[in-house]
Amino acid sequence: MIVVMSKDCGDKEAAEVIARLEAAGLTAHLSRGVERTVIGVLGTSPALPELRDTLQLLPGVEQVVPITKPYKLSSREFQPENTVIKLGEHSIGGDELVVMAGPCAVETEEQAVSTARAVKAAGATVLRGGAFKPSTSPYGFRGLGEEGLKLLAQAKQETGLPLVTEVLTPGDIELVLRYADILQIGARNMQNFILLDEVGKAKKPVLFKRGLSATIEEWLLAAEYILSQGNREVILCERGIRTFETYTRNTLDISAIPTIHKLSHLPIIADPSHGTGRWDLVTPLALAAVAAGANGVMIEVHPSPETALKDGPQSLTFENFEKLMTQLAPVAAAAGRRIAGKGV
Amino acid sequence: MIVVMSKDCGDKEAAEVIARLEAAGLTAHLSRGVERTVIGVLGTSPALPELRDTLQLLPGVEQVVPITKPYKLSSREFQPENTVIKLGEHSIGGDELVVMAGPCAVETEEQAVSTARAVKAAGATVLRGGAFKPSTSPYGFRGLGEEGLKLLAQAKQETGLPLVTEVLTPGDIELVLRYADILQIGARNMQNFILLDEVGKAKKPVLFKRGLSATIEEWLLAAEYILSQGNREVILCERGIRTFETYTRNTLDISAIPTIHKLSHLPIIADPSHGTGRWDLVTPLALAAVAAGANGVMIEVHPSPETALKDGPQSLTFENFEKLMTQLAPVAAAAGRRIAGKGV
Amino acid sequence: MIVVMSKDCGDKEAAEVIARLEAAGLTAHLSRGVERTVIGVLGTSPALPELRDTLQLLPGVEQVVPITKPYKLSSREFQPENTVIKLGEHSIGGDELVVMAGPCAVETEEQAVSTARAVKAAGATVLRGGAFKPSTSPYGFRGLGEEGLKLLAQAKQETGLPLVTEVLTPGDIELVLRYADILQIGARNMQNFILLDEVGKAKKPVLFKRGLSATIEEWLLAAEYILSQGNREVILCERGIRTFETYTRNTLDISAIPTIHKLSHLPIIADPSHGTGRWDLVTPLALAAVAAGANGVMIEVHPSPETALKDGPQSLTFENFEKLMTQLAPVAAAAGRRIAGKGV
Amino acid sequence: MIVVMSKDCGDKEAAEVIARLEAAGLTAHLSRGVERTVIGVLGTSPALPELRDTLQLLPGVEQVVPITKPYKLSSREFQPENTVIKLGEHSIGGDELVVMAGPCAVETEEQAVSTARAVKAAGATVLRGGAFKPSTSPYGFRGLGEEGLKLLAQAKQETGLPLVTEVLTPGDIELVLRYADILQIGARNMQNFILLDEVGKAKKPVLFKRGLSATIEEWLLAAEYILSQGNREVILCERGIRTFETYTRNTLDISAIPTIHKLSHLPIIADPSHGTGRWDLVTPLALAAVAAGANGVMIEVHPSPETALKDGPQSLTFENFEKLMTQLAPVAAAAGRRIAGKGV
Repeated sequence: MIVVMSKDCGDKEAAEVIARLEAAGLTAHLSRGVERTVIGVLGTSPALPELRDTLQLLPGVEQVVPITKPYKLSSREFQPENTVIKLGEHSIGGDELVVMAGPCAVETEEQAVSTARAVKAAGATVLRGGAFKPSTSPYGFRGLGEEGLKLLAQAKQETGLPLVTEVLTPGDIELVLRYADILQIGARNMQNFILLDEVGKAKKPVLFKRGLSATIEEWLLAAEYILSQGNREVILCERGIRTFETYTRNTLDISAIPTIHKLSHLPIIADPSHGTGRWDLVTPLALAAVAAGANGVMIEVHPSPETALKDGPQSLTFENFEKLMTQLAPVAAAAGRRIAGKGV
Repeated sequence: MIVVMSKDCGDKEAAEVIARLEAAGLTAHLSRGVERTVIGVLGTSPALPELRDTLQLLPGVEQVVPITKPYKLSSREFQPENTVIKLGEHSIGGDELVVMAGPCAVETEEQAVSTARAVKAAGATVLRGGAFKPSTSPYGFRGLGEEGLKLLAQAKQETGLPLVTEVLTPGDIELVLRYADILQIGARNMQNFILLDEVGKAKKPVLFKRGLSATIEEWLLAAEYILSQGNREVILCERGIRTFETYTRNTLDISAIPTIHKLSHLPIIADPSHGTGRWDLVTPLALAAVAAGANGVMIEVHPSPETALKDGPQSLTFENFEKLMTQLAPVAAAAGRRIAGKGV
Repeated sequence: MIVVMSKDCGDKEAAEVIARLEAAGLTAHLSRGVERTVIGVLGTSPALPELRDTLQLLPGVEQVVPITKPYKLSSREFQPENTVIKLGEHSIGGDELVVMAGPCAVETEEQAVSTARAVKAAGATVLRGGAFKPSTSPYGFRGLGEEGLKLLAQAKQETGLPLVTEVLTPGDIELVLRYADILQIGARNMQNFILLDEVGKAKKPVLFKRGLSATIEEWLLAAEYILSQGNREVILCERGIRTFETYTRNTLDISAIPTIHKLSHLPIIADPSHGTGRWDLVTPLALAAVAAGANGVMIEVHPSPETALKDGPQSLTFENFEKLMTQLAPVAAAAGRRIAGKGV
Repeated sequence: MIVVMSKDCGDKEAAEVIARLEAAGLTAHLSRGVERTVIGVLGTSPALPELRDTLQLLPGVEQVVPITKPYKLSSREFQPENTVIKLGEHSIGGDELVVMAGPCAVETEEQAVSTARAVKAAGATVLRGGAFKPSTSPYGFRGLGEEGLKLLAQAKQETGLPLVTEVLTPGDIELVLRYADILQIGARNMQNFILLDEVGKAKKPVLFKRGLSATIEEWLLAAEYILSQGNREVILCERGIRTFETYTRNTLDISAIPTIHKLSHLPIIADPSHGTGRWDLVTPLALAAVAAGANGVMIEVHPSPETALKDGPQSLTFENFEKLMTQLAPVAAAAGRRIAGKGV
């Protein structure tokens, strides 16, 4: 931490800052310059975040500049080697490219099972599907609940694909854990800290989506909630941020992918279905994410998108999903990853 | 709803759209133009939101344009007169200007009680204070929990001020209801739909903050969750949206205030403390919000901001809060509202 | 400037940074800490901005933190007292509240003259009106050009109101200067640096609008172009920034008003017409801007907005402008400013 | 265009709207519904954009919905086949992947020539380099001007690479045209309409960057300025938009690439150097852009970025550029494009 004092700050003001720092067990180095006086802070203290805020309010202080990252367990400094998460015979975070695919919301047995079969045949290694759905409007479809989880369990049994599905609230974790292989935390819940605490205690991997207006730093800090409870199997998922552009539902921040690889050891996948909101942009953005180094992609697939109860406009048909998988192979190879699904 | 067909759409495509509409019990009006063919849709159906999505995917359809607002109970069309919420001898939503003030987080009995006394003396009519605090980092201060609620209860008893305090998760609602007069839903939980369902069943008013990247329409739709569960006492709170500007923590969207008055009958207040993140911008932004028609303001006050455990940099001292109240009076008067607090 | 070295940086890397700094005539102070090594930089050099970029690329450097503001002439540090610009018997930047009003684009003599008379009667002290208009589409109305300037000159002569009008390109400055009392630089030209250089050489005040995606720091840096050419009479104008909200055309950043007063000595006014894009939000946002400390407002007024060639939806009628002026008076008084127009 | 009338609109209001439409030579179709009354508008008129604004202000009108795109010449409806621009033996917009590379700003003969040789050897087919540089600060480096153009001309002669270089103001076009093969319009000038008019009259291709806060629709509308003056050789360049994320300088909107291919026939390239502001993100984002279908990329290269006068932190060394080209080849192949440069 560095404390920048204002141009005309006197000795008394600097002394007060130094006294506060020393009271917290830190060491202060004073440098007087022509334009500014600067106090460098050495040492660490658990009270540092609060201290930063309070120093800002002292007379003569112009700016307090943090110089260490606020997240620890998720940082590459803490763990230089990549986190690789085992998932049956497959793994996420290594040289495999993981493709998670399935319907936005599960609707019927037929829909769930046929989609699971189709995506497996095309090379997906994880089945996605929602039973508890967040809906912008209370009058929209909110998912089948436990009934939906049972249908997903059938699709899973038929195909052997592990299942990723969303949990919306602490009270449902136990139930969802009975069916899911990966717990999904949606974008709207990225800062639902109580929920993060609780999935941090679960013994299954967590797919953790970035919030619509979250910076990368806030996302890693939120992941820290899960990690610090003991669950180290977190898969980050970029799913688009909110910008002024209205043609796409969100703007998929592809640059977040190499940035996460630089700052963190956690695997990162991309969700171009939610990231664009338009099925005809899903394939180019999936290819882009993989070229930029994503560990995987998450794709919405539906037997007939034009009758889907949710997110039809961003879902691929079986045929289009198959085409995507074909196009994905050479790009994955160029990026040094292999698609491990049976169908490929 | 209006369905715009592409330039070269044939009769078959138009017929398919019309068939779908009629199957849902709606009436379709076809108009063929030089540039576009347009199908007007009359009637209503609960399946409308889903239908809108699926029509978009049919061949020949270029655009589906909704022409009714997606929220109902919160709209001014549904209820033309303002919602006025009684709060002891005061009320929110009428000609009173409500000032809610207090510490960001409750820390000690002394801090809670002295702040409550000071803000009451200066004219505040509601005490704010947090016992359950969302914290960006798991290593930050997360509030005193039930112990904090007890301290707030003491401050309330000493001053007679009703209490607004945040609830973070469905499991805590019962506990918080024992102490709070108004339940606060924070910005990060604006789309925590399970929590909204549950506070919708409570018998106390809800202070409902706008999410950092929520449009006004999404905010009203989320309020609809609470209203549709039977709780009609919702107070909206604008607290800043996320933009590219970094000088302020957020950008307080003052235009949301008259916009809400136009679209909805619900009262709206502003929170310039979180909206700016800087105590020296709190007063000018509070004045601006009231001039623009806000029903009230929510202000963070602390006996010594430079030692606060949370949000010190955006908290006013007792003295600065008193000054704010003095400056607020003539602006409130100009805006046709009166400050009803005892101290004024 | 402070150079933060990475955790594991060696002596060699630090020495290289120090050598570069000393070569530029600066002094370096090295502090080794447990978590980071920090090099404080004292002294100034014209090469500082470039140096900052290049240091960032040296081995072992993690972050380069500037600690002085990049703008000088526009900063309050450089000039503590407010800039007050004389304009006939009126002035901008002092205790007067300046109201600039008139049509978005001048259309006819009748329109220009009648509007000028109406706004003067209601208390405006500056006439606004565009002859050269930026238009998002090449097929839209682009203004009457010199013919328009002549009509504005007539309106000015009839009323005695000084005129503010936009200049779009360096080649037009000479012509516009013949008619205008204040040169306006529009939001889209905020970083048209050649144009800024040229109006910096003019001998008339410049009304300088903030760009749609400009930070406050970039805005002040751009103002610096004008100031550094010798023209010290710059009036800043907040006119809305681009956010994800779509109900309003832009989001008027009211917090920029007190922020500018803190960082700079230049006067600042607000343009709620462009800032909201909706006439029914103009009055509440004008009141908000004045309550927050604006030195003035700029308002679009048209004899019959529903036939205006440009920006009708955000223009006030004569009647609504008069009402606005009536509402403005007590808010201006509360903010310590007086409306000086004859009509008041 | 469709005019949506408010719920309670009477016959008189509807009649007034219809009268206005018919006066402009358009045909109106009235449909009365339970929730809303809708007036469909058929036919076209040059006055349409203005009419849209004015109708919005008439009593009883709730919303005016445009249903045709506001741009014409740049739309795929107007020209279904791709625009392919010849550039010596190469072309942009067909199956070639164009790589434009070179220094941000030209500094010396040695720097310009050595960079040109290095990028050509690695497979670039166009030389980029700036002589007139926009600089956020008036105290920053603004380029060598005509002297810089001469140095670029030398680099061009030595290598045979065609040159793309920026023009900042109408007064410089003639001069720049003497040296450049492609005129570049920078992001800050995307809505400098006078400049667009003038390059629209030039007989050379224009590289047209997206503004930092421009929607895709506004970008295409601005391109329309150039096209409508007769210059049909416009190459669009996505270079990042402004968002709340601060780790990257901008957010490169990769989804704009397939969107432009859908809406327009114009070629589109990506500039990951400006789009990220960090050299270590340039390669992954270049790969992503090509995977998503870009017709080319524009890359900043410098012999020693740590001494560059401008944008060093986002420049690749010769070695890193060569690596990028090696990685680009298989991704280009997967996307159905070939790199045509001599070095490949």
